[in-house]
Parts: sequence; C-alpha cells; structure tokens
Amino acid sequence: MEKRLIVDMDGVLADVYEQFIRYELEETGRKISLGETLGLSESEAFLNGRKHVRLKGFFRNAPVIPSAVEVLERLNQKYEVFIVSSATEFPNSLEEKYYWMEEHFPFVSWQQLVFCGSKAIVKGDFMIDDHFKNLDRFEGKTFLFTQPHNVGHSERSHHRVNSWIDIAGILL
Amino acid sequence: MEKRLIVDMDGVLADVYEQFIRYELEETGRKISLGETLGLSESEAFLNGRKHVRLKGFFRNAPVIPSAVEVLERLNQKYEVFIVSSATEFPNSLEEKYYWMEEHFPFVSWQQLVFCGSKAIVKGDFMIDDHFKNLDRFEGKTFLFTQPHNVGHSERSHHRVNSWIDIAGILL
Repeated sequence: MEKRLIVDMDGVLADVYEQFIRYELEETGRKISLGETLGLSESEAFLNGRKHVRLKGFFRNAPVIPSAVEVLERLNQKYEVFIVSSATEFPNSLEEKYYWMEEHFPFVSWQQLVFCGSKAIVKGDFMIDDHFKNLDRFEGKTFLFTQPHNVGHSERSHHRVNSWIDIAGILL
Repeated sequence: MEKRLIVDMDGVLADVYEQFIRYELEETGRKISLGETLGLSESEAFLNGRKHVRLKGFFRNAPVIPSAVEVLERLNQKYEVFIVSSATEFPNSLEEKYYWMEEHFPFVSWQQLVFCGSKAIVKGDFMIDDHFKNLDRFEGKTFLFTQPHNVGHSERSHHRVNSWIDIAGILL
C-alpha cells in the first residue's frame, strides 16, 4: 500500500511571502526584503498581512514555489498525496485555493484536497509543512519546509528541507 | 483528554433530501416522495441531482435536520467536535457550507471545520455519517445516520441511529 504524504499549501506550494511583500508595497510604498523578515512570524513581519489575506486574489494569484510542480507530480505517482491547507479561517480563500490548485497542479484531484482549520485531525506517514504547530502534532515523519519565519528556530524533531529539490532527494 | 467526534454535514446536519425534492419539483413539476427513494442511492433517486448540487444556493439554503442544533451544542461541550464534509467535488459549495455552518451552528468555530474530498484522512474516536464509504474506513466507533439511501441496507459493523435524539441518548 502506498504511504500517505501530506503537503501544506501556503509556504510550501504557494509563495505567500511574495504576495505579502507585493501587497505591503502597494499599501505602504515600502518594499520589505526577505532578510528583514527572518525569524519573525508572518504577522510580525507584515503588519497589514492579516488584512491582506482577506483581499480577493491574495491566494488565487500567489506564485508557485520553485520546482514544486515537477517534484509533486512525481511524488503523486509514488505516494498517496493529500494537500492539506488551513483555509477555513478565511472563507474567501476556499474557492481561490481550489482554483489555484486546479490551475497549477492539475494532476491533483479534488479527492486529494483538504481545507481545514486545524491539522490535528489528519493522519498519514509523512507531512511537509512550514509551521511547527502543524508538524508538532503529527504522528508520522515530519519535514520542516524552510520559510523566513522558521529560520533561526531549532528544527526540534523535524527534518528541515530548504527546497523541493531537497524533498525530491529524500522522498523520490 | 476529550474524545474526538467527527460529524458529517449532508444528510446528518443538513437535510439535502428536502433540497433534492424541491429542486426536482421545480425542474420537472413532479414531487418525489421520500418513500420512493428508500434504498436507492441519491443519484438513482434524483435524476437531476448531480446538476442541482452545482446550483447556487443548494447547500446554502438546506434546512437543518431536526434537533441537530440543540444536540450538537451539548456534544460540543463534551467532545472535541470536528465537522467533516465532502465538499471539494463542488467548489461552489465550499463557501456556502461555511456560511451555512456559521448561520445555524455559530458555536462551531472555523477551527472545527474540514472540507475534503475523501474522509480516509481523518482520525478520531467517533464518526457520525450517513454513507458507508466514509464509515467503513474509519478506525473509531461508527454511527450510521439513517437516510433514505441507506434504509434496507445492513448496518454492517456500524451502529444505526435514526435521529439526533438517538445520538443524544448514546453520546450525552
């Protein structure tokens, strides 16, 4: 039986930092650099972020993280893949995330999508996520996907990966 | 620690049969009785059903199953409740289901909502659902909520409940 692989969206498939920076620039005229955001939570780094994620298009137009498409397509042939995204906090994001997946990852079916509030409820063998709160409660093997907010924080019991190429090297 | 209770929406909290009957009546002028639908799958009973669930308002305006609100409110104090609904097949249903829950079950937070395609991924202690495909793969104790499509079918290893009053008697 195929092992089950659980993959996060924001910060793993979708480049939300790029969006935060764009929206902040548009609102304040100031371009925040990734360097300034290292080690800070997203809400510390982007003071208007909580407002921006509620705007139409924020999730729908997020860029894809490099190599995510190519690597996930191959993982999808080897594992039972589920895309599990925290989305119910922002109801406007639900449809946007659905259509974003359909556009960029057409090989992932609707049966493989999970939009939730808490990831405590999912079970599987592997989880790739950029947030400790999701990884810490997972029973299987966990991969911490490097994003500015988790830089400088100890990996704890999670295996840190810096890119989709890293993931390919381990899981393919 | 609280036991985790997983509750389905369609056919358990939301009366989708009432909606199927309404929409079929509107389209064909024929009022289907519940009696005619006993033992048939929803798509056998409602020939236009697959079309109707895609229409705006189908899920948003579904009536609530009797006593669901009162009993779930009390269960929510005793269990870790998650509402897990198959929704990603119909992306238009995502926001509708969110706002339907917010309207009728305001005591259930966004953290407790899960919209998915397959329920194979969720773990918990109890599951209430009207479909065998969801209950059969669940590891905890399972309750089959009676709906016309499962009438006349053996309960298998699941405990059949006919109403929210039944559920209150067992779980409260």
